[in-house]
This record gives sequence, structure tokens and C-alpha cells, in this order.
Amino acid sequence: MNEFSLIERYFQPLSPVLLKDDAAVLSIPAGHELVVSSDTLNEGTHFIAGADPADIAHKALRVNLSDLAAMGADPLAYQLNIAFSAMPDEIWLEAFTAALAADQAAFGIFCSGGDTTSIKGPLSISITAMGVVPAGQAVTRGGAEPGDVLLVSGPVGGAFCGLQALQRQPGFTVSEALIEACYRPCPRTDLAEAVRMYAHAAVDISDGLVADLSHICEASGVKAVLEAETVPLSEEVKVLLRSGAVSRESLLSGGDDYQLLMAVPPQHTQHFPGSTVIGRFEEGAGVRVQDVDGQVLSFKEKGWTHF
Amino acid sequence: MNEFSLIERYFQPLSPVLLKDDAAVLSIPAGHELVVSSDTLNEGTHFIAGADPADIAHKALRVNLSDLAAMGADPLAYQLNIAFSAMPDEIWLEAFTAALAADQAAFGIFCSGGDTTSIKGPLSISITAMGVVPAGQAVTRGGAEPGDVLLVSGPVGGAFCGLQALQRQPGFTVSEALIEACYRPCPRTDLAEAVRMYAHAAVDISDGLVADLSHICEASGVKAVLEAETVPLSEEVKVLLRSGAVSRESLLSGGDDYQLLMAVPPQHTQHFPGSTVIGRFEEGAGVRVQDVDGQVLSFKEKGWTHF
Repeated sequence: MNEFSLIERYFQPLSPVLLKDDAAVLSIPAGHELVVSSDTLNEGTHFIAGADPADIAHKALRVNLSDLAAMGADPLAYQLNIAFSAMPDEIWLEAFTAALAADQAAFGIFCSGGDTTSIKGPLSISITAMGVVPAGQAVTRGGAEPGDVLLVSGPVGGAFCGLQALQRQPGFTVSEALIEACYRPCPRTDLAEAVRMYAHAAVDISDGLVADLSHICEASGVKAVLEAETVPLSEEVKVLLRSGAVSRESLLSGGDDYQLLMAVPPQHTQHFPGSTVIGRFEEGAGVRVQDVDGQVLSFKEKGWTHF
Repeated sequence: MNEFSLIERYFQPLSPVLLKDDAAVLSIPAGHELVVSSDTLNEGTHFIAGADPADIAHKALRVNLSDLAAMGADPLAYQLNIAFSAMPDEIWLEAFTAALAADQAAFGIFCSGGDTTSIKGPLSISITAMGVVPAGQAVTRGGAEPGDVLLVSGPVGGAFCGLQALQRQPGFTVSEALIEACYRPCPRTDLAEAVRMYAHAAVDISDGLVADLSHICEASGVKAVLEAETVPLSEEVKVLLRSGAVSRESLLSGGDDYQLLMAVPPQHTQHFPGSTVIGRFEEGAGVRVQDVDGQVLSFKEKGWTHF
């Protein structure tokens, strides 16, 4: 099997576009803008060698879908750039492409092309996802206003706990659901329309709740007050927190949850069912994390960074 | 310097879009379609370790611009995904980004975002370029018709000769210009409008002239007759050919030239100044490469493939 037969057999079925052309041609609906996001996952950095190919595929696509959702955009198409250290076997390829196909159906996106290369190193997957948004309605990190409340779309910290378990930290035995939280995040594409209609600013929690919140504050020129104990946690994560196996600080600074963090005028919170108010925006700068008594909690690390 | 300061210092100046958001928002002119292409370059596979960062940058961007040109699309923006084995030094980053900035100005494109990651392996650069074309006017590989002539936009084989010299093949001492042909291809974005106005099919010569011509034939369901001795060669390549240092077969199957190969109705060739008629399309299938006496030249390898 060479590069061309690999593409024809495994990647062409993911695409309504003929992958043999130099480029894909995509129609953007009239009155809409294009929203573009890229994320790269490298073996040994973002996932372990020998990881389940379906997990890799889900994560590689979903982290991009999450970025589109944070902008209020609906998914359109994605480019798949994959560098293999050796020609993968057919079992791997079938599992990888089946996972992409399942996500394409679930999230309404298709593969528009990409590049398949060989690399003298670890598997590297880079996806560029494209979405569409009615012109002028994209939501950035920069629109939060004093008086907005801080909403989070669902429980956080699960991916952090799953990762600790995967890395075999002492005291950690967690459910399959938390392991899955690391590898198969649920991008909140279901909230994209509400985000563009009602949110002043939004970001997905990829670097960590506090770090991503500080991004909103910097971009918007506002201060955020985060009520640490109001942050929603799953029942399992609550048990880990109470047992001391994990600190609240870790849960608020661990990344990869892919819930949305949003600045929303208080009268519009009902448009985000399942979301929780965890703080508010004020005049000023920076993030204040406080406990139920209003005491400041300080953070050593705000979130994940490369290098 | 961490990931964020690297982006702010070196990559933000390449972009009119705030790279801190989750995604970029791009306007597509009314009545236009989006054209998208991706290419990945890996150290040790597509360029040698320690290669000039400016060369790497030029090649990574230009191979994508070439794909857009082959579709008849004008450049709009690109996503830059770069995986570093270690934090690069400032000299490297300055040279790399200065080369991108120069090409942005030369070809009318800007960086709309991307992802910067660390990899436990070689440097890997994946670019997704986006262009625009008036709706319905994109040119694919599939439109060649019997009666069309085969046009090539400029001399070929230079990149192959440069690569041989770089790999220190005996008998090869070539000019800087041929070395540069490997690393700094000239994408024919200047021909994009003529391509969409007058070409029935087009492809850029990345895999090799004969291989890329066979792609047109397969996609279009036609046969191509290539008159091997009419293929334009630079004066330096002609000397190498006459001396026996390189074979005509190698020149016609070596890749990376990034000239355009086009199927054009005979009455429209004047719209492609500097281009040369090197054959014709007929009813049938496959590529016939023939010499000045009409004798068939056979090929062992049609072009480059991974794995």
C-alpha cells in the first residue's frame, strides 16, 4: 500500500470532495463568514505511544470542533494532515478512520482534504477545522463586560483526574468515564448558536479554567471573580477532591476539559441550559479566585504550556 | 520564552487577526468559493536537518500557494502548524518568520492562525492555505478534453538537479539557482486568473511531470501524448542532460518543480505567456511519452511517493 492507495482506501470515504485534486472547493453560505482553527497532536506529547487510534482520532477532531463552538461557529469541513513514522497497519487505519467517520456524522462536518506524509519520528496529526458563522456574529475572547456573569457549560476537572490515573499517580483509580474525558472530549457544538446569540465572550477550557479565564480578562480588559466552590464537578471528581487525592487548585488549573467558559449578561443565562454561573466580571484586571468566605485562593500554575 | 510569548513575539506580527482567539474569522468575498489546500514538510523527509530556516519557510508556504494557483484560486490566508523538537533560538525564529513575511507581501496572503507544539522528534510544519475563486470557476484535474493542448508554465527538472547536487551525487556541481529551485519554488499565482478563465484542467508539478500528467488523464478520462523533447529546460539543465549527468527520464519524473501543467484549448494558449506547448490530449487513457521520431520512451518510476 502506498500513499495514494492509502488515501483512496481510507481517507477518500471520509470526503464528498475528490481528494485527488490539489485543493478542495468549499461553498460558504451567503452572508456568512469563515471561522478557522488548527490543533496539532503529537505522539509522546499529547497522547501516549500505542494509544487507541479511535481515541487519537476523536481527540484530534474534537479539540478543533470545540474551538469552533467557542467562536459561535457551526462546523463545515476539516483538513487532516497526518505524518506517519511507518505505514500503519490496516487495523489501525480502520479504527482511526471509523472514529473520524462517526464524529463527522455526530457533529456535521466532513474531511475536505489534507496531506499524508512520512516522518522520522512520532505520529503527528494536525487538523485545521473550518466553520461558518453569520457575518459579524463570531464571538471572541475580547467582549466580556463588567456586569456579565461567568458561565461554565458543564463539569470541569474530569480530564485532569483521568490523566493522573493514566499516568498512574498513587491513589488514583478512576472510572472509564474519566479516562475517556482525556481522550474523547465532548465539544459543545450544541451551544454554538446560543454563544453567538447571547455570549459577549467565550473560550473553550483547553489550557485550564483559570488560565483560559485570564485570557478572556486580558482580551476584554476586565476583571473576573471566580467563586471556586461553585464550579461544577462530577460526583466522581467530588469524591477525589474530598479524599484529598486531588486539590481544588489542580481541578481549576488542569486543562483539556473542553467545556465552554462564557461571559453572558445575567438576563440571558437561561439560554444555556446545563450551564452554571461560577462568577462575574467587574471593572479591573486579572482573575480573583475566592472561596465561599471571599478569601483569595492563590495559584502556582495557571495552566498548561508547551516548553 | 514560552509558547505564548513565542506566538506573541514571532507569529502575531504575521497576522492581522488576533492570534489569541480560539479561531480566526475570515470574510469570503460575495460570489466566491473557498479553496483549501494542505501540505506538511518534515525534517529528515522533506528537508535536511539544519536546513536554512528561510528555505524551510519559503518552501512550506509556496507549495501550498502552488496548489491554489493550480485550482485558479487567489491566495487569502494560511494556518501555520509547527511542531518543534525544542524551543528554537531567536536567530532561527527571526529568519523563519522574516521569510514568511516576505512571501506574504509577495503573494498577497496572511497568517490567520495555527498551532505551536512540542514534538519528541523532528521539526514538522504543516500549512493549510486558503484561497478564493469566483463561484464555479475553480479548475480541477478532471476537465481535460481531447483536442486540448498540454501546456507547461516554465522549465522543469531544475529542482531534481538541485536535489542531486545537495545529495552530493557524483558529477553534480550546479549553480545556486538550481539549489534554490529545491527550496524556494516559485508558485505560479500569477497564472491563477488565466487558469480559471482558459484552462480545462490544471495541476502543479509536485510529484513529477509524468506522474502529475497521469493524474490529469485519470481524472479526466483522456490520454495525453507528451513530446519529451519539447519540454522546456533551463540552459544549465540542458548542459547536464547533454553531458549525461542526468537523464531525460529523471527530468520528466523528478518532482518539486511547481510549474503548472495545464489542458488548454489551442486557441487560448496566448493567454499563458512564457508557457510552452509540450503535447496534446486525445481520446483514450494513459500517458504516452514520445521522442522526436514518435518512438515511445518508457519510464521506470513515474514520480515521488511516500512509503
